Amino acid sequence: MKRLEVLRELAHQNNKKILIWVFDGIGGLPHPDKGGKTELEVAQTPHLDAFAQRASTGRTMAYGPGITPGSGPGHLALFGYPNDQLQIGRGVLEVLGSEVCFHRGQRVEGFALQPGDLAARGNYATHEDRDGVHVITNRRAHKPKTEETERLSLRLSEQIQIDGVEVFIFPGMEHRFGVVLRGAGLQEGLTETDPQVEGAPEPACEATRPEAAAAAAAVNAFVAGAKAALQGAGSRATTVLLRGIAERPAIPTLPELYGVRAGAVAAYPMYRGIANLVGFDVLGAPKTHREELETLKAHYNDYDLFYFHIKETDSVAHLGDFDGKVGVFEAVDPIFGEALALGWDAVVVTGDHCTPSVLMEHSWHPIPTAIWYPACLADDSPKLTERHCARGTLGDIEARHMIPLLMAATGKLLKYGA
Amino acid sequence: MKRLEVLRELAHQNNKKILIWVFDGIGGLPHPDKGGKTELEVAQTPHLDAFAQRASTGRTMAYGPGITPGSGPGHLALFGYPNDQLQIGRGVLEVLGSEVCFHRGQRVEGFALQPGDLAARGNYATHEDRDGVHVITNRRAHKPKTEETERLSLRLSEQIQIDGVEVFIFPGMEHRFGVVLRGAGLQEGLTETDPQVEGAPEPACEATRPEAAAAAAAVNAFVAGAKAALQGAGSRATTVLLRGIAERPAIPTLPELYGVRAGAVAAYPMYRGIANLVGFDVLGAPKTHREELETLKAHYNDYDLFYFHIKETDSVAHLGDFDGKVGVFEAVDPIFGEALALGWDAVVVTGDHCTPSVLMEHSWHPIPTAIWYPACLADDSPKLTERHCARGTLGDIEARHMIPLLMAATGKLLKYGA
Repeated sequence: MKRLEVLRELAHQNNKKILIWVFDGIGGLPHPDKGGKTELEVAQTPHLDAFAQRASTGRTMAYGPGITPGSGPGHLALFGYPNDQLQIGRGVLEVLGSEVCFHRGQRVEGFALQPGDLAARGNYATHEDRDGVHVITNRRAHKPKTEETERLSLRLSEQIQIDGVEVFIFPGMEHRFGVVLRGAGLQEGLTETDPQVEGAPEPACEATRPEAAAAAAAVNAFVAGAKAALQGAGSRATTVLLRGIAERPAIPTLPELYGVRAGAVAAYPMYRGIANLVGFDVLGAPKTHREELETLKAHYNDYDLFYFHIKETDSVAHLGDFDGKVGVFEAVDPIFGEALALGWDAVVVTGDHCTPSVLMEHSWHPIPTAIWYPACLADDSPKLTERHCARGTLGDIEARHMIPLLMAATGKLLKYGA
Repeated sequence: MKRLEVLRELAHQNNKKILIWVFDGIGGLPHPDKGGKTELEVAQTPHLDAFAQRASTGRTMAYGPGITPGSGPGHLALFGYPNDQLQIGRGVLEVLGSEVCFHRGQRVEGFALQPGDLAARGNYATHEDRDGVHVITNRRAHKPKTEETERLSLRLSEQIQIDGVEVFIFPGMEHRFGVVLRGAGLQEGLTETDPQVEGAPEPACEATRPEAAAAAAAVNAFVAGAKAALQGAGSRATTVLLRGIAERPAIPTLPELYGVRAGAVAAYPMYRGIANLVGFDVLGAPKTHREELETLKAHYNDYDLFYFHIKETDSVAHLGDFDGKVGVFEAVDPIFGEALALGWDAVVVTGDHCTPSVLMEHSWHPIPTAIWYPACLADDSPKLTERHCARGTLGDIEARHMIPLLMAATGKLLKYGA
């Protein structure tokens, strides 16, 4: 946080315009059937190529080598708030990165974490009642399938009733889920209900400070309700274990830190939610890339800092569809060209993480990135690719430095010390 | 500080000789009228070229991407003491980086911060007296011009009288200035007099520990004196707000850490002051590059670690004089050659920050650097330039690692652990 305080002090307002263009899961890996080329190397993208030739290329890392970021942590790092600096609760990260949310037995779209919400990360687990003591016998409920977890989560959202508290459930992979409790006066300062070892009694949630007493009661009511709901559900899951129970973090937003007017263009709810968390106004309701472009154009005059998100590069890579990812780059390329033509003082093309289609998953590889501004040191990269970016003049930098770099590039950061 | 303690433990004394050659503001950017080349790319510097060909090239960053270091923070990072590690007060940084100092209505040269000095960062500000309550109405006195700030600072230094305390004022850009109070028993542990928001009452300075009571009284006397001096000064500034009030930091000096004998060759007062702060003996009184070389030669046998500073690369770049900066590199090149010929066990050529002449200001770009020692891994850079250094074998490193690297290169750092 101390670095953010320095940045806040150096911030300087002007009308210069910045575009952060995110291809979700941008980076890939060579495919043996494609001449050993990556998706970015194969894609025919004249507008991106021309941009890369004017730009300084390099790579960003969200959490350093070996750490594969989820979408929540990846975007937080890109926006300058890596979680290892800020101590954002695991529950909050889980919820920010979830694409499915159940509320009162219904799937809901566009969930946004609000101030005062309490978020937790959960495990479905198995317990036994031994003379009234609930002993955890399997902390992961014998690893249910993801579909079973989705079914259980829907059921919990339908059946659990807590006075004055709304419950939102976010099913994850296998035994994992997220939960949000929303109600007046729910404050953090709570112990976890996960004993961490099997064969141990299930602990109740306790308040570590008096203000959190109502929240502890709500958490314990949630666990009791989950136990009741799981009876007769046809699963080895019989209880839930909650960890990382915390409020929405009080992040100093980008407008607060830099005095910028920040606008986000994204089609998918979770990216809209993350952008909202860090202070972007979330614009319009675009569904297609073309609609995203029109949204950007419509609000171009109203903001200094834009975040523009393309989801499908990630989605198709998760399916192992190398050609599909190439196709998304090629289809978006003219849209990118039109967006560029609006006129900018600094533009970066980057990602929140890599999703190589040969892996069908997010990966830990550094994120190919190209940044242009009038005073950038352009290199001789003919194209934005993993291999060119590995040798560019931007070098390898932590993703959290990207926003300060864009601010410096546009005269929005003053000198540090005389 | 923990890393410094490790370094102190590993330090090993020998007679190997190290030269740190600093071109102030070394790095530049391509100029459209110069075939897209930078100052370093254009300059004809046979001695520097030959050195780069034997060296490992790379780049250093003082505070990471996007942060433009002032001369004080930039040099502290290069000497191994980046301010984000050490919590040096903002007042101290301001004063260390200032080129103008007023004392008793006179401009003084060669101000050196002494142990026991109390330094603060100041704003000229505007206030209103509302029934005896001083309310801050503009925290920056409506942004006076820099010349007005210089005039006001001279006036304050002339008029403010505090018993047993000497006052030094350092005018900065627009509303900013630095102040040093020098007197017996002035200890840190003080609250700030800046309410941080406009429309709030101006707080008095208070001691947060009993030992700081005399200092709090001196600070409040300074503010009262400033208010009186600003009356009739023909400015919208009517008071001053002080932040970051602290003593000269108790930095473990380079001689203390490494057991080296450290000698500094610099012509300009502020670089001599910073070198003094970290434990260099400041040598002679050279005014020209040739006199700097003669100073180095005269003391060559007396020290193990030399800092050699060339100021003009920065000065001419601040004027936007591309050819002038090229000319300084070319004029200094034979001096560098003569200095090299003295014989060294490790030499680094680097900067404290970049000052591209096309920007006419310090910048945030990584600092081109070449280091030579017998066991360095030379790369194929034909010349020390921004673009070659972006791909050199040194890589991109934090500036604070340069001193340890030089110590290791000369056998002055032992193995860490068995």
